[in-house]
Order: sequence, then structure tokens, then C-alpha cells
Amino acid sequence: MDLVVGIDIGGTKTKIGLVDKDGNVHGQDFFRTKEYPLLEDYLGRTKKTVDTLIKSLDIKPNILGCGIGAPNASSKRGTIESAANLLWKGSVPILDKFKEKMDAPMRIMNDASAAALGEMLFGSGRKMTDFIAITLGTGFGAGIVANGQLIDGYDGFAGELGHVDMTIGDGRLTGLGVRGGLEAYVSATGLKRTIMYMLSKYMDDSRFRNIAYNDLHGEEITQAAEEGDIIAIKAFDYTAKMMAQALANFTAFTQPEAFVLMGGLTNSGKWILDPLNTYFNEFLLDVYKGKVKIIESGMPGKTAAICGAAALIWEKHK
Amino acid sequence: MDLVVGIDIGGTKTKIGLVDKDGNVHGQDFFRTKEYPLLEDYLGRTKKTVDTLIKSLDIKPNILGCGIGAPNASSKRGTIESAANLLWKGSVPILDKFKEKMDAPMRIMNDASAAALGEMLFGSGRKMTDFIAITLGTGFGAGIVANGQLIDGYDGFAGELGHVDMTIGDGRLTGLGVRGGLEAYVSATGLKRTIMYMLSKYMDDSRFRNIAYNDLHGEEITQAAEEGDIIAIKAFDYTAKMMAQALANFTAFTQPEAFVLMGGLTNSGKWILDPLNTYFNEFLLDVYKGKVKIIESGMPGKTAAICGAAALIWEKHK
Repeated sequence: MDLVVGIDIGGTKTKIGLVDKDGNVHGQDFFRTKEYPLLEDYLGRTKKTVDTLIKSLDIKPNILGCGIGAPNASSKRGTIESAANLLWKGSVPILDKFKEKMDAPMRIMNDASAAALGEMLFGSGRKMTDFIAITLGTGFGAGIVANGQLIDGYDGFAGELGHVDMTIGDGRLTGLGVRGGLEAYVSATGLKRTIMYMLSKYMDDSRFRNIAYNDLHGEEITQAAEEGDIIAIKAFDYTAKMMAQALANFTAFTQPEAFVLMGGLTNSGKWILDPLNTYFNEFLLDVYKGKVKIIESGMPGKTAAICGAAALIWEKHK
Repeated sequence: MDLVVGIDIGGTKTKIGLVDKDGNVHGQDFFRTKEYPLLEDYLGRTKKTVDTLIKSLDIKPNILGCGIGAPNASSKRGTIESAANLLWKGSVPILDKFKEKMDAPMRIMNDASAAALGEMLFGSGRKMTDFIAITLGTGFGAGIVANGQLIDGYDGFAGELGHVDMTIGDGRLTGLGVRGGLEAYVSATGLKRTIMYMLSKYMDDSRFRNIAYNDLHGEEITQAAEEGDIIAIKAFDYTAKMMAQALANFTAFTQPEAFVLMGGLTNSGKWILDPLNTYFNEFLLDVYKGKVKIIESGMPGKTAAICGAAALIWEKHK
């Protein structure tokens, strides 16, 4: 059986899995990225996990290669560049380092671009030539597919839409120090910050008046909204409005047929998606109205990132 | 000799020329678009101009086809959709209508996308796979080239960047009624509006205190800046800052190697380009700094639009 190793390097977890041509995952595992601050140790741990996964299969697979998704990765240079959520600083030649450990064809790409490729090969993007995959996790990532191709950019850094300035002037700072950057508003972190903002702005009673910022988790905000907490509902509305404005602007760029959403914030379901759809259709230029869908990822939640990484290699075999 | 008919349908002028494979124009002419409010008359006038141009050549050319650039044109549907600056309203099936008059392969495209294709075949884009052509005329248009291809969009309406909302909230209305739209600030019209804004905001003496809005022309604003008029200089600075913010945001989308500028506003030279470059490098994300150029069109000013239209056909013969 032909399989591809998919590795998703996240700020919190590194997820590894073996993926077949249809996007099925045959064994997966993860470990905490920050337990390996030294790159050499990290690579050793990764190699060990891959070997263990391969050995645990019933039959010996034919490994076609290894795809890696990572924040701030340059596909053209094979590096990770100053990723805000990783411990390795500066420009890390991660692909060359991996090649010393593993003898297989390898590719690396920005995690959101890999996710877009995964959607194109295995998920909601299979029948679309123009769509934008949006990852709503700790940050805001985007992978752009146009004319049936993933858009790389001149230097491999296309789709850094989390840092688009949404405010022109005074605004929140992102992790990269960008003022008014989209991901400071539209992400799991952005939603938490907006809860603080709503507590400052309104006097409504709320469970969040008794919870410190660092103790606040996304699921709790969804649950509060379910229970009618006004601050939570206002925070979702604010987040959805900012996101709708951004997606309406992005539509004018490549005119996608759909935005495909994935990542933690999408677990909030209707609380984010309902106001998002309402505002989006309000903000969209007339020429695009009724032509752009907002849909959820077509891949099982726990495997999307791994399949996206594996898609980097599977793309070359289809 | 193989030639292509290039037709640029503008709000003010319709320009027609015969273009060879290297982008040289062998005879060109123009007429005022609004003198032909009836589509049938307009098509007749266009056909007559084409025939006259062909007859005036020394040798009988081999006409490979006819390319048309027009505002709000859908390449996929062959229509012009509700163009703010044209007299024909609603959805105009212009390509089908033209085909009744002329027996040749035909293509139509948004004028800015056609300009991008022209730059790719004949101008500054010849060696680039990722760039964005920006037309700064009555409005703000954009044609996006990524992965060496022009980006069409799902429905042929990619690159409508003049209507991107720059303000989130209160802002100027564009001709399409979009609040805070970029072209309400960054275009020849936007510059005039900014002169009015500066007259409202500051009390500096200025020649523009004696000129009505409708009597104001772009060349005059450049000349005033040359003579040290504070209001003119402030208006250029404001325009450049807004444009720099927009281009920095656009960079995060497809990461172009360059923005290629053309159109009336570029005639203001250093007054717009110097502050634009300064602000642009200030606003650009670190990961892009020093990697994105702002350059001027590589095509002679009077022929750029015609060559862009002709490029729609020449693209298929290269």
C-alpha cells in the first residue's frame, strides 16, 4: 500500500500520520512541540514517531514521501521564518534538517496553504477551481486556490491574511506586532480579547466577570452564548462582523467560489457562522452577491492538518 | 503580417489599434464612447474604425482576432455588468453583439486584467510570474498574475480591488455606492476629493481655494505641488499613504514580486511615488520587506490599454 507521511508542526502539538491516496489516515500520533526546544531533539522525536507508526501497520507500506505543514514556512526555500508560536528563532532550514534524518521525497508549506491543498485533494475543494481555505486557530491562516492551483507567491509567502490591517490607524497588535491585524480579532485568541473588550464597553452581567483572561477557553464562550450570556453573544457578533468584512474584501481579490473554514473557532457553530453569513452578504459587492459560499471543511477535524501536509506529496502522484 | 485588433472601452474614450506579436501598434484611433449611447450605433462605429485602420495599412494583414478590455467585464460570460462609467445599463452581452459584426476569434476581459496580460506579454511583467498591475484612472483597477497566470476568479470578476473597504465604518462612497472603497481615495477622482478634504481640514493658503471641484484637473494638482502648494502636497501624501496601506495588504494575498502602475495618476511622478514608496516599506510585513517593488508600466503610455486588449488574443498564439 502506498502511503505518505503527513507532519503538522503546530505551536502546541506536532501531529503525525500516514495518509493513503483517498485521504484516509492509517495510524496517527502527536507530541507537544515545546517539549523539544532544541531542533535536533525535535527531529529525533519526529523520526521516532514516524518509525513507530510505520512498524505498527499490518503490512509494510510503500512510503512515497513526507509532507510538512508549519506556520511561516516558505515552500520555495524550505525554511520556517520567525514563527511567533514556535521556540526556534530566526530562519530555520527545516527541510534540509529533516532530509538528514529521513530518506524520502519531502516538501514543506505554510500550514494554511497545506490545508487548502488537502481540501482540494480530499475535502470540500475537490470540485472547485477557486476557493480560499481559512484556518481559525490560535491565529488566522489562509490558503488560496485560484485557476485550480495553489497560489505560492513570489517567495512562498502568499496568504498571510491574518496580518492584513483591518483598522487603518489605532488597533490591536498581532503576535507579529502588526497593528490592527485581522488575527488579533478573528481567531480563538481574538475572540478572548473581544470578551475583554466587551467587558470594558458594556455593564451587562456575565460569567466572564469572574474569569481571568488566562483561564478563559473557547468552549466556555460558546457555552455561555448558549446560556444567553450577553457579553458572549456580543463578542461573537463583533468577531463575525470583522470576519465578514475581511472575507468580503478578500472576495474582490480572487473571487473564490467558497471560503472553506476549519480550526477551533468553527466549533462555536451557529454563534459565529450565523452572524458571519448575515454580515458577509450585507458587505459583499453586488457583483458577487449570491455567488460566494461559506462552508466548513470536508475533512474529519482531527485529521485535516495531517492530510493537508500529506497532500503536498500526493499532489505530485495524481 | 499577423495582427490583432485591440479595443479598449473606456468611460471617456474608446481606443482601437492593430497590434503585432511584439506589442508594436500599427495604426490606432479613438472616439468618444458617450457619443454612442445606443449599443448598435456604438458597434457600428467601432467596426468602421477597425475597417479604416486595416485599409490604411500598406499591406493586407492577417487578423488573428480581436481582444476587448472594458470596465466590469466578465471574461467567462462575455458581458459588461453594470459599469458605473458607461451609458449601457444592466448586463450587456457585448461579446455576442460584437461577433455579429466581426468574423474573428474574440475575447473580452476587465480592462485592468487585460492591462496585466499586456504587461506580461509586452511590458514590465515579461520576466515575472507574480505581479499585480494597477490602473489609476477615473477609478482604481487591478489585474493579478500569480503562478505565471492571470487570475480570473470563479465568475470572471477577480481583481475588483477598487472596492475593497479601507475604513471599516464611516468613509467615502465609491461610484458603486461602496462605503470606504479604495478608489474613492486612490484614483484621479480620489485625489480631487482629497483636495476638497484638505481644504476643509486645514487653513493653509492654496490656489485650490479659487477653483471649483468640477474645474479641477489632475495636472493642475501636480503643478501646484511643484510650486509648493501645501494643500496639494498634503493631498498627495494622504493619497500615497492610503495606497501604501492597500498595497501592503494586497502583498499578503498573493505576494507579488512587483506592483506595476499605470494610468493618469502616475503622471504625477515623484509627488505620488516618493511618499508611496516610503509608506509602503513602513507598512509592509517584515517577511516581505525589501522583496516587493513598485514600478511603472513598461509600455508606452498611449498604447498600454490597446496592447492589453490585444494581449487577450496574442496570449493564445504564444
